Amino acid sequence: MDFALDSVTEALRERLLRFMDECVYPAEAAFEEQAATSGWSPPPLLDDLKDEARKRGLWNLFLPGEHGAGLTNLQYAPLAEIMGRSPSIAPAATNCAAPDTGNMELLAAFGSEWQRKEWLQPLLDGEIRSAFAMTEPDVASSDATNIATSIVRDGDEYVINGRKWFISGAMNPNCKILIVMGKTNPDAPKHRQQSMILVPRDTPGVQVKRGMHVFGYTDADHGGHAEVVFEDVRVPAENLIGEEGGGFAIAQARLGPGRIHHCMRLIGMAERALELMCRRALARTTFGKPVAQQGVVQDWIAESRIRIEQSRLLVLKTAWLMDTVGNQGAHAEIQAIKISTPITVEWILDKAVQLHGAGGVSQDFPVARLWAAARSLRLADGPDEVHKRSLAYREIKRYA
Amino acid sequence: MDFALDSVTEALRERLLRFMDECVYPAEAAFEEQAATSGWSPPPLLDDLKDEARKRGLWNLFLPGEHGAGLTNLQYAPLAEIMGRSPSIAPAATNCAAPDTGNMELLAAFGSEWQRKEWLQPLLDGEIRSAFAMTEPDVASSDATNIATSIVRDGDEYVINGRKWFISGAMNPNCKILIVMGKTNPDAPKHRQQSMILVPRDTPGVQVKRGMHVFGYTDADHGGHAEVVFEDVRVPAENLIGEEGGGFAIAQARLGPGRIHHCMRLIGMAERALELMCRRALARTTFGKPVAQQGVVQDWIAESRIRIEQSRLLVLKTAWLMDTVGNQGAHAEIQAIKISTPITVEWILDKAVQLHGAGGVSQDFPVARLWAAARSLRLADGPDEVHKRSLAYREIKRYA
Amino acid sequence: MDFALDSVTEALRERLLRFMDECVYPAEAAFEEQAATSGWSPPPLLDDLKDEARKRGLWNLFLPGEHGAGLTNLQYAPLAEIMGRSPSIAPAATNCAAPDTGNMELLAAFGSEWQRKEWLQPLLDGEIRSAFAMTEPDVASSDATNIATSIVRDGDEYVINGRKWFISGAMNPNCKILIVMGKTNPDAPKHRQQSMILVPRDTPGVQVKRGMHVFGYTDADHGGHAEVVFEDVRVPAENLIGEEGGGFAIAQARLGPGRIHHCMRLIGMAERALELMCRRALARTTFGKPVAQQGVVQDWIAESRIRIEQSRLLVLKTAWLMDTVGNQGAHAEIQAIKISTPITVEWILDKAVQLHGAGGVSQDFPVARLWAAARSLRLADGPDEVHKRSLAYREIKRYA
Amino acid sequence: MDFALDSVTEALRERLLRFMDECVYPAEAAFEEQAATSGWSPPPLLDDLKDEARKRGLWNLFLPGEHGAGLTNLQYAPLAEIMGRSPSIAPAATNCAAPDTGNMELLAAFGSEWQRKEWLQPLLDGEIRSAFAMTEPDVASSDATNIATSIVRDGDEYVINGRKWFISGAMNPNCKILIVMGKTNPDAPKHRQQSMILVPRDTPGVQVKRGMHVFGYTDADHGGHAEVVFEDVRVPAENLIGEEGGGFAIAQARLGPGRIHHCMRLIGMAERALELMCRRALARTTFGKPVAQQGVVQDWIAESRIRIEQSRLLVLKTAWLMDTVGNQGAHAEIQAIKISTPITVEWILDKAVQLHGAGGVSQDFPVARLWAAARSLRLADGPDEVHKRSLAYREIKRYA
Repeated sequence: MDFALDSVTEALRERLLRFMDECVYPAEAAFEEQAATSGWSPPPLLDDLKDEARKRGLWNLFLPGEHGAGLTNLQYAPLAEIMGRSPSIAPAATNCAAPDTGNMELLAAFGSEWQRKEWLQPLLDGEIRSAFAMTEPDVASSDATNIATSIVRDGDEYVINGRKWFISGAMNPNCKILIVMGKTNPDAPKHRQQSMILVPRDTPGVQVKRGMHVFGYTDADHGGHAEVVFEDVRVPAENLIGEEGGGFAIAQARLGPGRIHHCMRLIGMAERALELMCRRALARTTFGKPVAQQGVVQDWIAESRIRIEQSRLLVLKTAWLMDTVGNQGAHAEIQAIKISTPITVEWILDKAVQLHGAGGVSQDFPVARLWAAARSLRLADGPDEVHKRSLAYREIKRYA
Repeated sequence: MDFALDSVTEALRERLLRFMDECVYPAEAAFEEQAATSGWSPPPLLDDLKDEARKRGLWNLFLPGEHGAGLTNLQYAPLAEIMGRSPSIAPAATNCAAPDTGNMELLAAFGSEWQRKEWLQPLLDGEIRSAFAMTEPDVASSDATNIATSIVRDGDEYVINGRKWFISGAMNPNCKILIVMGKTNPDAPKHRQQSMILVPRDTPGVQVKRGMHVFGYTDADHGGHAEVVFEDVRVPAENLIGEEGGGFAIAQARLGPGRIHHCMRLIGMAERALELMCRRALARTTFGKPVAQQGVVQDWIAESRIRIEQSRLLVLKTAWLMDTVGNQGAHAEIQAIKISTPITVEWILDKAVQLHGAGGVSQDFPVARLWAAARSLRLADGPDEVHKRSLAYREIKRYA
Repeated sequence: MDFALDSVTEALRERLLRFMDECVYPAEAAFEEQAATSGWSPPPLLDDLKDEARKRGLWNLFLPGEHGAGLTNLQYAPLAEIMGRSPSIAPAATNCAAPDTGNMELLAAFGSEWQRKEWLQPLLDGEIRSAFAMTEPDVASSDATNIATSIVRDGDEYVINGRKWFISGAMNPNCKILIVMGKTNPDAPKHRQQSMILVPRDTPGVQVKRGMHVFGYTDADHGGHAEVVFEDVRVPAENLIGEEGGGFAIAQARLGPGRIHHCMRLIGMAERALELMCRRALARTTFGKPVAQQGVVQDWIAESRIRIEQSRLLVLKTAWLMDTVGNQGAHAEIQAIKISTPITVEWILDKAVQLHGAGGVSQDFPVARLWAAARSLRLADGPDEVHKRSLAYREIKRYA
Repeated sequence: MDFALDSVTEALRERLLRFMDECVYPAEAAFEEQAATSGWSPPPLLDDLKDEARKRGLWNLFLPGEHGAGLTNLQYAPLAEIMGRSPSIAPAATNCAAPDTGNMELLAAFGSEWQRKEWLQPLLDGEIRSAFAMTEPDVASSDATNIATSIVRDGDEYVINGRKWFISGAMNPNCKILIVMGKTNPDAPKHRQQSMILVPRDTPGVQVKRGMHVFGYTDADHGGHAEVVFEDVRVPAENLIGEEGGGFAIAQARLGPGRIHHCMRLIGMAERALELMCRRALARTTFGKPVAQQGVVQDWIAESRIRIEQSRLLVLKTAWLMDTVGNQGAHAEIQAIKISTPITVEWILDKAVQLHGAGGVSQDFPVARLWAAARSLRLADGPDEVHKRSLAYREIKRYA
């Protein structure tokens, strides 16, 4: 056992830290200002940051294999954490932002040559954005077999009908392609009914209706969370990803890395929150002494440090397992971090909000928005309760 | 000891419940729609509801004494709770909304005859709105002696300079008057330095700069939470409320009822959340059975019921104490409910959000916004930690 | 609504407080010393205290109606709370100790004239003790229909076979009578299979095997918690309480008051713990200042005060409901306090233990033993989880 | 970074697991039986287990360097965890039990040649037991500078006066030697006043007065927790460990490994508790279905698994840090695990108790006693609150 980072990771870490210090943190204020007027598109300064990141060799770090930086999950984890410290900017600037990352992985793994050329390449180049359309308002989507959107073969085409929501990124006009999950084979066995299909956002019948809010936030700077209606949407049959009935398996494959990336970034958000807490505690005085000397505040800070350390280690071990025994072998650990990281980071952010007083809930500090991001991850990809149930079954089965 | 409501309260309760059923709940959807386009003003349909409420004798229920409905705190509490079930509409429709309630109480108790005629009367009639300007961004305002805004006598006028924020309601164009707290006597003893003064919102030098957000919400439908800068603002000396140096005492007097009103409404919000939880649990199915049969969800529902009951009783007892031994005699209990009610209701709303899945964080259900309201009340009028400290001192002193 | 105590309660409260100050607290140290050598019997000094209590008119206060003091539940509650401040002594000294209280109520309500004369009278006089034998080791007894002990009619006798445990008080040699629950009619409908029967402890075949521990405590001073085996135990048919098949209904009737008495005493234990916390915090110094000035300790103290107030009010309201709408009408509230009071008081006692350092876990302070008492009440009469489930069903049903 | 165990550890792990399966678990019932009658000595069967463990090469595994097995902390950690699954037997059987382990490390590191020959050797051979006498009833011993016991040089001797309590193991008649901490130099700088000295338990003036209880448990099977009074106790000057004034530094050196050993064993206790929970949940039925299907129980099991994984990883990383940057370099992490492991394992054990119903609090299942052990470790070596304060200071200082 060895807890030291390898030299590849160390070198990239140093490079990325320098990029954060020199380019990302200094851009945060301007980013917020531009975001206030840039509608559903990202603030224009993001393009410069993307150029800069690419120039510095900080590009597509998330992607293993030939198409990307070729890092293992364990190597990528500490880098994603650092990006998480400025989650509106750093992941997007390095082309490591959800949902594109998951979509690129999916296309790299399951896409046809044509699909990769047409859609993966511009995504790898950061020229377009993409969305992943799975969650539906009318069913409990945590059980993916509930998905009701229909995808029906009609000659050389598929016809899609259904309603999706919380399709992150899809409000962004530069989001050019949607990966849509629906049912092609309603009579097949439960986990062989679903398929995934590529739907260009400008296809007739695709209606991007509105942006869903997350605790009052529209998250417009990264393309919002759209409600999208598909009404007799027709796409060529070659747009199907993999084979008919393969959608559930692809979804499972996609979700593992997606979840761990979220967790990595959450750790970074927590580190940022802890730094903000300490700085605020030093800067403010109440009842004649710095807030940093209040026992309850010290308790929050110590607890935050402990919880961050524990959370990070479980995320790293999960990454190592994915690298060594595969996503399936790491299934329980992926669930464990999916359950524990958001709620832990939410707890830390709650304390950060509290420590900032009225300012903490406002737009003047990042903590309230970070809180909302962490909170919503207790629901994204299925509520904690569903994952706990599954984790418990696995545990109990050992003795049954 | 007797836990039954008296007949006056029962009669008003019944009348109010009918108003809720017939007028308020049916208006909620339209209210949200109008609110989306009515800027910083309340949705227009509110005026009709106000007329209706007044006609039904449901007006100024909060106000004891000749100017109002003459109810005790204990009588008003169950009514305020009911209003809290639809907190964007019911309090405003019955002219029982913060911060006007506190401001009217303040003017009724401490205002000069002229001040009452000029400002209290139109407030009682629901013709104008008002704001209470105390919190400042640059100091820990939970310790009111930190307030830095200066109010300087200059001949027949006072000159006001300072910066306030989170001035609820002040973005509303119909908010005509601000009650501003500042320092008139910086050299007096600590609790005799402050004064309160009436500042019409259109006075030259008053700059309503922007609306502060609360977890992404602007709360525009009830006038937002403004940042207001006072630059050499001049008002006649007769605008001072009470005497110079009396501001701290007035603030203390105002805060008690203000806090208990918030708590009463929070209980109503919690009841609403619990109802929504039950309905959702019955309506949704996962893994082959209604969510209502999931053990964890049952646990949330049972816990919510218990916590609501306990919270309500402490609020009611506090109201009874305020009626029988006065606000000062009920000081510890007011603190106790100020600490415990928001965090309890926040817990319940968190569960309500979770139970609604992705929809729970969105604009399609009221739970996320209610959550933000409860969460921010852990900070309003000073963070919980300050009040706990004070409560502990009182407890420990009994044995010192 | 009125939160003031009535004059009867006030007078008894004053009398009881004087008894506590003059007789009970001063006897605590000697009680512990005697308990160390008095085996499974109570310390001898208890007899003097019983005489004294009876002389002072503080006897059988728990019992409504002609046989007892005739108080309502609401009147008794504040008295039981005071007794709970010294739970090893005060309830026993006033003949208000479990399980005798429940057994006396049961006999007063359901016993035949003969049963009342033979067993109720000596219990009322404090001459003997009794036990209630329901819980069984081999089944989940929280579901009373699981009870497996058989009670079979054989001529003029019933024959009893079964194994019970955690039969509180039954190790005490002065425990003369057991009320045993078992199945007389295994083929009847589910809730009509059980009966209750009186079994003198010295009946052949009754084997009191051992005392069960509660976190290391034997609770020998109040007769321990026995494992009792019944092997072909024969008692006259007249020993049956009520009618065959009526056991479940009697159990339900008995449990309500039993639960609320526990809760009342728990509140008193919590008040004692809070007092001990404050005194300790004032007496100890760490890192140069009294522990009372540590923020985290202040937080515990404030939270304890708030939680006590809330818990007490819900217990009192439940008592009022039992008085006004009956035990059945108060069913949900009885469950609510049964769930919430033990865990709340356990939380407070945990903090009291922590504040007393190593001494807190030891025999030198009462807090660890009080903790164990509170903790075990999360299980007695069924674990919290069972009651929450039931409470949730009731809540959900309102909207079904 | 690499999360796999090395081959040395793997081999020992396998050997130890076999010893557990073949010798330790099968002996547990008999151990409990013998413990009931063996007074303050360990059950006699322990001697056979010690012989067997030594024969199998499972002896003094805790001790790095020439005197012991030569393992690193990281190698020892997974082994100590396994021992913790049967904490009354396995550590003692392998001569890896506290407080001997810490005392042996101390003597190996700081003892003179004579001291090592006289006391370390028989401890290494498992022939005698030892105790560490630091905590005092009259001062907050979490601040070691508060220690009041005096050690005064008088010619060739030191004279010791003071009162200690919670001296674990000292009730055991085979405990032959005490390491006593006291003040030799009350006028020196704060951290140079203390010394440590060897005091044979049979020295005149050493009075082992009584065993302190821990939530009702005497822990007699491992020698209890003694109160010891030192009255003019005289020992030769050569009994002083290291130099005068070096006691504080030695204490700091001793506490690090001691704390991590406790944490390692706690993880094992938690694994045992989780196994017991799962088995119980499968074996019991309530309301018509196995407890394993209750959602709340599944939640406990999933949470337990997650918390165990996180806790173990932080303990392992701390061990790695101690090995690579030294105990001082790992100071913050040692504090972090000292704070978080006991309370986490206590939480898991609370759920295990609850799941076992009344049996859970009793002597028939190990969970209540394990709970008490975990709970008391929130106090041993200083309450959590003291360590959190220190951890927070370190965190805040980074930004000051």
